Order: sequence, then structure tokens, then C-alpha cells
Amino acid sequence: MSLLNILTSLDFPQPFQIKLPDGSVHTHGQGKPDFVIHFKTEAALSDVMRQASLGFGEAYMREEIDVEGDIHDAVTLGYRALQGGIKPSFSEKIKFLIAYLSRRNTREGSRKNIEAHYDLGNDFYALWLDKEMQYTCAYFKTPGDTLEKAQIQKLEHVCRKVRLKKGDTVVEAGCGWGAFAVYAARKYGVKVRSYNISKEQIEFARARAKKLGIKSSQVEYVLDDYRTIPDSGKKYDKFVSIGMLEHVGLENYRTLYDIIATSTKEGSRAMVHSIGRIAPKKPDPWLEKYIFPGCYIPSLSEMITPVESTDRDLHVVDVENLRYHYALTLDHWARRLEKNVKTIRDQYGEAFVRMFRLYLRSAAAGFRNDELLLYQVLLSNGRDNSAPLTRQAWYK
Amino acid sequence: MSLLNILTSLDFPQPFQIKLPDGSVHTHGQGKPDFVIHFKTEAALSDVMRQASLGFGEAYMREEIDVEGDIHDAVTLGYRALQGGIKPSFSEKIKFLIAYLSRRNTREGSRKNIEAHYDLGNDFYALWLDKEMQYTCAYFKTPGDTLEKAQIQKLEHVCRKVRLKKGDTVVEAGCGWGAFAVYAARKYGVKVRSYNISKEQIEFARARAKKLGIKSSQVEYVLDDYRTIPDSGKKYDKFVSIGMLEHVGLENYRTLYDIIATSTKEGSRAMVHSIGRIAPKKPDPWLEKYIFPGCYIPSLSEMITPVESTDRDLHVVDVENLRYHYALTLDHWARRLEKNVKTIRDQYGEAFVRMFRLYLRSAAAGFRNDELLLYQVLLSNGRDNSAPLTRQAWYK
Repeated sequence: MSLLNILTSLDFPQPFQIKLPDGSVHTHGQGKPDFVIHFKTEAALSDVMRQASLGFGEAYMREEIDVEGDIHDAVTLGYRALQGGIKPSFSEKIKFLIAYLSRRNTREGSRKNIEAHYDLGNDFYALWLDKEMQYTCAYFKTPGDTLEKAQIQKLEHVCRKVRLKKGDTVVEAGCGWGAFAVYAARKYGVKVRSYNISKEQIEFARARAKKLGIKSSQVEYVLDDYRTIPDSGKKYDKFVSIGMLEHVGLENYRTLYDIIATSTKEGSRAMVHSIGRIAPKKPDPWLEKYIFPGCYIPSLSEMITPVESTDRDLHVVDVENLRYHYALTLDHWARRLEKNVKTIRDQYGEAFVRMFRLYLRSAAAGFRNDELLLYQVLLSNGRDNSAPLTRQAWYK
Repeated sequence: MSLLNILTSLDFPQPFQIKLPDGSVHTHGQGKPDFVIHFKTEAALSDVMRQASLGFGEAYMREEIDVEGDIHDAVTLGYRALQGGIKPSFSEKIKFLIAYLSRRNTREGSRKNIEAHYDLGNDFYALWLDKEMQYTCAYFKTPGDTLEKAQIQKLEHVCRKVRLKKGDTVVEAGCGWGAFAVYAARKYGVKVRSYNISKEQIEFARARAKKLGIKSSQVEYVLDDYRTIPDSGKKYDKFVSIGMLEHVGLENYRTLYDIIATSTKEGSRAMVHSIGRIAPKKPDPWLEKYIFPGCYIPSLSEMITPVESTDRDLHVVDVENLRYHYALTLDHWARRLEKNVKTIRDQYGEAFVRMFRLYLRSAAAGFRNDELLLYQVLLSNGRDNSAPLTRQAWYK
């Protein structure tokens, strides 16, 4: 089947058009099309058939595919096409596997993988993230919440779940630009030690904390791998990790949970917040190559299986799926990116703009269509029989 | 090491005494002992060493072990001893495995296993369960809630989680004495079809619904295996299973989730409420032999792994661990059992009383000590993008 036949034979609820290199236009559905996908070269058509999402992404980046309308919806069609017959060829799969394995998350590998994305420049991220520079799923009480508000609500939601209280010591694995530590320290009077291997992020976090007058005895940003957390021998009251697990790699989950068990006190709570998916599956080849090298998006069972061990008493007390919140978050980011598109294009070029647009819109489409989920997994390291019986306090 | 040496060498927070068959008394800890375990025969001592919990349970049932004080605390010591050196011998393990396999949950096997416990007599269960005859974990908003109140709160909590609304059709797998169906039908105006293979429970449920004036067009109790749910070809709005998974057997979980996926509509919610444990482990041999033949208590990963399949879109939206609620529920049941102990002893004999006492108190100790957990796993069959963003409505 040709790509055109596949796309127009799908049971897709929105009307759309496909333009082919020969100038022909093919309409699906009734009424004004919501979007138009323009395949401008024969190479683009054959790349999509051979390489699926990787072919689409690369052809879009080199302007051989254009999309009129929201690329979010075109990608949603693409997700259906991936279920409906478009598969990477065997040789493409092998190529992906070899490249993917070369980006494994050894300590050195993790550093390279993280630098590749998070050290693109703080100024760039400041153009489309919220004021606090939070690059993880926000928490919306209503769909109309501003991004700024929803990001603060996320921090508060995490603080409540781990039951922060004045004087607690908290260790954070993967702190981004440092927003959680600042919020927790100021709102709850806790001491936070935050780890991150992105040099640019840690420098930004330190400068910001200093500017806010927060002492390093209250918030300490450590430029190091989460695997060094137990080196100090300290036992913390709480453990928090927001949006790091995606970069940890499946083979290291047991190590991460061992670290939680050994570096927290009996009865401590730990939050692991991560993108997830419905069933075990390799990451999307385009996303892994261009956006998050070395990433792995786990299913919930993959997140939870390595928690379980009869040698320790780490166990799940709560799981919340915030899937739709991430779609809303990504909508905000994409709107802000488009507002600043000229600035970004001038500095980074059109291919970069298209890469980021495709990434943000395809991720939003993924969360809307259950391709991606967002799990907050709350753990307890041993029992705490004095914990509140219900979750009511989180909703006051 | 002798049993005495093992028990008195454990780091156990409560003071206790061990009495041996020779009349000697051995004290552990300071102050008045919280409990005394009296091993009255040499056989009891050697049975515990060889058969661990099975040896203890059988010796207690035949009055060769007595416990003064709350047997809950003696069992807690027992849990420590199981971690601290008391292990069933290899031949005992093999014996258990052979017996366990003979009680597998084929359709015929399940019927026998369920009859063995649930058809002991409705009058017996009425002596210590709540008015609605709910034989599953209650939901306490405060520790002082009455059992009656907490059991109604559990039903309401489940109804809110699956988002029952007027006119919904609901299928229930494993309905006990029928309380959920009655509550949901009367409070939410839904139609419920409830399956159970216990004849006595179904007859009770039908009689009760009739007495309450509930029409069979609103609540229908079906005496059949959950595996026959898809036979009618109906697509329900909601799926509920409270306390059945323990009897399903690990090998049938995928079948259960297939049934949820095929017998509910796109975007439907399903509740699977089950006892769980921290890590995969065979059931306790005494409990499996005397109380719940064929039972298997899964870890959370064992519950969730078979949910995941790229062939369908069933996924977890929420997990709540209600461990401590079950300890409180079991405390209530045990108190009511003791209140009626003479009636029960007259009808069933002392061994039966001891069997039920040990079961209820050891289970409470298990939930207090993280040996046992209680998971409410909420699933979505495909996406529902109109679902509320937060869980706030459950806590109003």
C-alpha cells in the first residue's frame, strides 16, 4: 500500500488533506480540512514508509514535508498510521538499536546524553518555560490555569504527597533548574540537597538561589550523578525525583530504588515522577535521536517491578496518572515557542525550530492519545503507621 | 539454634514470655509482658521449627500452643522469626507445593476453593461482619469510624473512583453477599450485573435485594464464574471487582484484564481491589490450607504487568494502598468474633474458633507490619479526555 492509501484509509475523525509531490491533493473526510500534510519530494514519501516516525521527522526538519494547521493533529494521524501498517524496515530497526545502545546510561553516557539536550542554553529554555524554569509536567486544577500557576501547583502537590514538614531533610535526584528545592525550602522550611549532571542547569540554579537569598545550608545544588547520593552516608527524611527516570535507563532502576531504600529513614516517603507508557516499548527513534538521546520511557510495571524485593521494605503507597496534565503543559510550551519563533530561528535556524515544534506538538498528541502517560509513583521505605488514612489533605 | 533462642534473640520492641513444655518461663524485654506464648508439647516446638507458620497454626488449633494476650502481637513476633531464621524444611516446601497445585483455579477448582470458605454458613459470617455483610477492606476516614460506617464509605469511595453516574451499566466480578450492587443501584441509579460462584452468597444476595424491593432489572445476581462475563456480548460502562483477585490465581490475570477490555466501552473505568504484598511470594501455607485454598496474593507488579499490552489500551489511572484500613477492619471483625465466641464454639468447636481467631489476628498483624497491603487499582479502558483533572471530587 502507498503512504497515501494508508493515511486516507484510516478511520480518522478529523477531515484532512494530503498533497503529493506531483501537485495532486487528496481529501479525507467532510468539510474544511483541519490540517494539510504536504509531501514535497518523493524522498519524503519513501523515507516515511521505510523509517516511519524517524523518516517523517527528518523530512519535516529538512523542509521536504510541510504541515498547515496544527502539527499536533497531523502527528495524531501518524500515531494511527503506526498502528495501521507503517513500520520501520528491519534494517532501520537494527540501525536504531545499534545507535541506541551506543547512548547507554553509564555515568559517562548519562553526562553526554543530558548535556546534549539540557545544555542547549538557558536563554533558549527561558523563552518558553515558566518563570521558575520547570521542564516537567505541571498540575492543572482547571484546564484554564496559567502555566505559572499550574507549575507551582505541581510543586505543592509533590510536597503534600511526600508529607514535607518543617526541618525535614530532602534529597532530590535530577533537579533541572532547581525550582523544587527553592519552593520546598521556602514554603516548608526543609533542607534540600539536589543532584543534577547538567552543568548549565546547576549553575543557573545556584545563581538563582543566591539571588533569592537562600543559604547553601538550606538548599545545596550538587553537580553529580544520582548514583553518588549514598556516598555521603546521610539518611534523609524524604526523596524526590521529578522527571529524571526517563533518563535513567531501565537497567538502572533497581540501583535507583536501592539508593532510595538506603539513603532514607524508616517510614520515609519518596516520589518518582516520570513519563510512562501503556506497555513496554522502545522509545520513538526520532525523539531518541534528536531530543532525548539514551531516553527510555517505561511502562508502569517496568517502573514498579524493580521496587519490589523481599530484602527491603520499599513499596508503593500511591500512583497518579497525570497524562492529560502533560498535554496541557506542552500546549503552553508550544504556544510560547511559536511566540518567540523569530528569535529562535535567527539564532538556531529553521531546522532547529521545526525539530522543537515537532517534539512539543507530537508529545502533546502522545499524551492526548494515550501513547504517553505521566505517573507520579509515591513510595514508602518501610511502614509509617501514623500516616493519614486518606489522601484528603492533598485536596484542601 | 532452638526456637527459644531464635525468639528471644530477635530485636523485638514488646516485652513477652515464652513458656516451654518443661514448665520453664523465659522473659524477653523489660516490664510486664504484652503476651505469653505457651508451647505445651515438644511436638509443638519441633513442628514450628520444621513447618514454620503451618506448624504454629496447626499446634495452636489442636491446643498444643496457647497464647495469653493478643495473638496479633505473638504473630508479629512470628513474622520477625520468619525473617530471622525459621524456614520450612525442603520436604515441607515440596509438600506445600504439591497440595497448592492441586487447588489450582480452573473453573471447577475455583468453585471448590470458594465453597470451602464462603459457604461455611451465612449465619456464621453474620455474627462478625457488618450489617451489609461486606467481607473486604473497609475505608476509614478516621480510626474511630464504626465498621458499619467505614464499609459504606468503602462502597462510596469505589463508586466515586469509577465515576458512577445515573443510567450506567455496571458489571461486578465477585460480589460476595451483594452489598456493592445494592448500594450502587440505590445511590447512583445504575444497573448492576454481579457474578459470584458461591451459591450461599448469591442466594443471600438475591433474597436481600428482593426484601429491599430492588427489581432484578436493576440488580441481577448471576451464579457463575467471572470468565463467563463476555458470553453475553454486552458492553458495560463500568467494571468493579472488590476482593476477588486473591482467588483468581496469577495465571488467570491476563484473562481477567482481557475480559475488562472486551466487556467495557471505550473510556470506561474499572476497579480492581485486592490484597497485595511487597514482593512476589507464595501464600502462607497455613492460610492457604485452612482459610483460602488456592489463593494467591500478588505484588503490585504482578497485578499490573498483565494489564499491559500493545494490543489494547487498558491502563492504570490510579493506585491507592489502603493497607492500614484493612488492619482496622480486621480488628473490628476479631472483636465481634470474640463477642460471639461461645455461640461459634458450641456450633463449630474449639479448633474452628482458634482457626478463625488466628486467621483474623494474623492478617491484622500482617497489614500493620507491611506483610500484607491492600491495593485499589483503577483502570481506564482507552482514553477519556473529559475525565476530571484531579481526584478532588473523591474527597468532598
